[in-house]
Amino acid sequence: MRAAQYRGAGTIAVDSAPEPEAGPGEVVVSVSYTGICGTDLHILHGHMDHRVEPPGVIGHEMSGRIASCGAGVEGLAPGDPVTVMPLVWCGTCAACRAGHRHVCQRLVFVGIDSPGSLTNRWVVPADVIVPLPADLDLRDAALVEPTAVAVHDVTRSGVVAGEKVVVVGGGPVGLLVGAVARARGAEVLVVEPSSFRGSVAREAGFEVVDPTSDDVAAHVEAWTEGAGAAVSFEVSGTQPGMSSALEVLGVRGRLVVVGIHAAAREVDLHRVFWRELTLVGARVYERADFEEAVRLLAVGEIPAELLITAVQPLDEAAEAFATLDAGGEVMKVLVDCREEQA
Amino acid sequence: MRAAQYRGAGTIAVDSAPEPEAGPGEVVVSVSYTGICGTDLHILHGHMDHRVEPPGVIGHEMSGRIASCGAGVEGLAPGDPVTVMPLVWCGTCAACRAGHRHVCQRLVFVGIDSPGSLTNRWVVPADVIVPLPADLDLRDAALVEPTAVAVHDVTRSGVVAGEKVVVVGGGPVGLLVGAVARARGAEVLVVEPSSFRGSVAREAGFEVVDPTSDDVAAHVEAWTEGAGAAVSFEVSGTQPGMSSALEVLGVRGRLVVVGIHAAAREVDLHRVFWRELTLVGARVYERADFEEAVRLLAVGEIPAELLITAVQPLDEAAEAFATLDAGGEVMKVLVDCREEQA
Repeated sequence: MRAAQYRGAGTIAVDSAPEPEAGPGEVVVSVSYTGICGTDLHILHGHMDHRVEPPGVIGHEMSGRIASCGAGVEGLAPGDPVTVMPLVWCGTCAACRAGHRHVCQRLVFVGIDSPGSLTNRWVVPADVIVPLPADLDLRDAALVEPTAVAVHDVTRSGVVAGEKVVVVGGGPVGLLVGAVARARGAEVLVVEPSSFRGSVAREAGFEVVDPTSDDVAAHVEAWTEGAGAAVSFEVSGTQPGMSSALEVLGVRGRLVVVGIHAAAREVDLHRVFWRELTLVGARVYERADFEEAVRLLAVGEIPAELLITAVQPLDEAAEAFATLDAGGEVMKVLVDCREEQA
Repeated sequence: MRAAQYRGAGTIAVDSAPEPEAGPGEVVVSVSYTGICGTDLHILHGHMDHRVEPPGVIGHEMSGRIASCGAGVEGLAPGDPVTVMPLVWCGTCAACRAGHRHVCQRLVFVGIDSPGSLTNRWVVPADVIVPLPADLDLRDAALVEPTAVAVHDVTRSGVVAGEKVVVVGGGPVGLLVGAVARARGAEVLVVEPSSFRGSVAREAGFEVVDPTSDDVAAHVEAWTEGAGAAVSFEVSGTQPGMSSALEVLGVRGRLVVVGIHAAAREVDLHRVFWRELTLVGARVYERADFEEAVRLLAVGEIPAELLITAVQPLDEAAEAFATLDAGGEVMKVLVDCREEQA
């Protein structure tokens, strides 16, 4: 079989790899599709070498079918469609003891801290398997993981039906957040400077504001008849995005910090105080978020077709990374990891 | 009668003033004590001339007795001990309609946006009156308003018994926040660089860390056995205070922004994300907070004696402001507004 390895900053190479075997409590999954995300690009750029030692197989947004089960694995059988919730927690740290295992202080992120799914067959602990319904397209199912991120973000916001929500950043995660918020009955406005991403967001049914040409705060002020938005999601990871996400909120508004901010950001704490705002951090997901993500994809609430810009075969994994890394007219890129495609 | 007027930046002057009369729905209160707070100092320095037009009587932390009631006022009688919750809301803006009248978009803060209590007798709408129990010392009762601020802050934090709480800033509001959190069963650590304020905090029964000589984060790490604090209150209004309040929190910790931050602050949003922290703004108080503040003072949960550094007569109001403004070994300064003292 074949696997795509990270070989050090800038290099992904596909090569033969030994067939994995399922040890006790493990399963081997025949990978169908693996999505590439921003974190994978960070790894490609060599920014995460403290966690990913080359040569290493990465990838964690995936779908596939059970190939074989190790000793002691129950409730799963070869052929079952599945995805993976790629978190392994310690169970004993303060976060785990407090019931927040998904932010375990010693969290192992499968596909980063341990080998990933850019391969034909992948061995993982059976605990991380999440079954999929038979009628969910496995291409769409590669979006379960990022959709679970969005479900977690929206859950953390406490959004309820009828609330007005601003999503700052219209990339794949932003649109997934918007779609999940909309599925909960919120009215969603997307702030996105790229005309391509803005057009995808419009096609997905969202109102879009371009911050390079429109006054976002004034737009939201008018849209909410002076009340301000109830919830905003900062998905851009930028200072202007953060400022905008704060500025649009009305009294008691909630801002969810979704984007990765590599540097400290200037935050107008006087506004936080004056309007009694809440800023909430949201990281990865819990099991319930994953299950909700599966359900939302299955019922068609997630615009998967619009989000998947390209699907490239495993042997062209390096090109798939390059496509995403080049930016421009691209949302999500999947790698087809099925053996017959490789 | 006499009243202390703000006469423009730097000047408080006491002069004769006409006796107020209670119009319909109003009461005249014989003021016993008025506390001076940080906002009053801002007014003194001329920083709030857009809200306080000189000459104007200021002051809003007070206690007193009903002197007379205007037409239509029910449930109040001359001699009743009272304080004032100094907020008048519009009732029609988006914040009011959403039930958050205390942060009304057109809020009138009595004593800032309308005349205050640094006078012998003060006329206010009967709606703002909060009755006091007969056995609550009227000197201590001048602390009801800042205690209500602290109750609101602690309520917004969602602190529960047994949680470990860090209060960054050991001035009057910080110690009130600490006392209220302690009354709810929290374990409280105060971070305060001034040795005088630190000693008052210790006398009030709090553990104190001096950030100029101790590593606050390491101290909290050890104190919480690696878990981090559940809640922190940023009461210093400074960048180092904000950084410290964020740094001490464990997974899912909550930070309440209490202090006034005149400038935007650098906030480590990656930590907010990584630990799924929550930052909460808290401003003034609601009626229930005021009633809880009265109760806490009445049962002795608030170290009023330690907080009141000096009491000066109304005719020496300018000196009272100067005492507080000089800083150093001072917590709260009250002005004795009783006529026989003037």
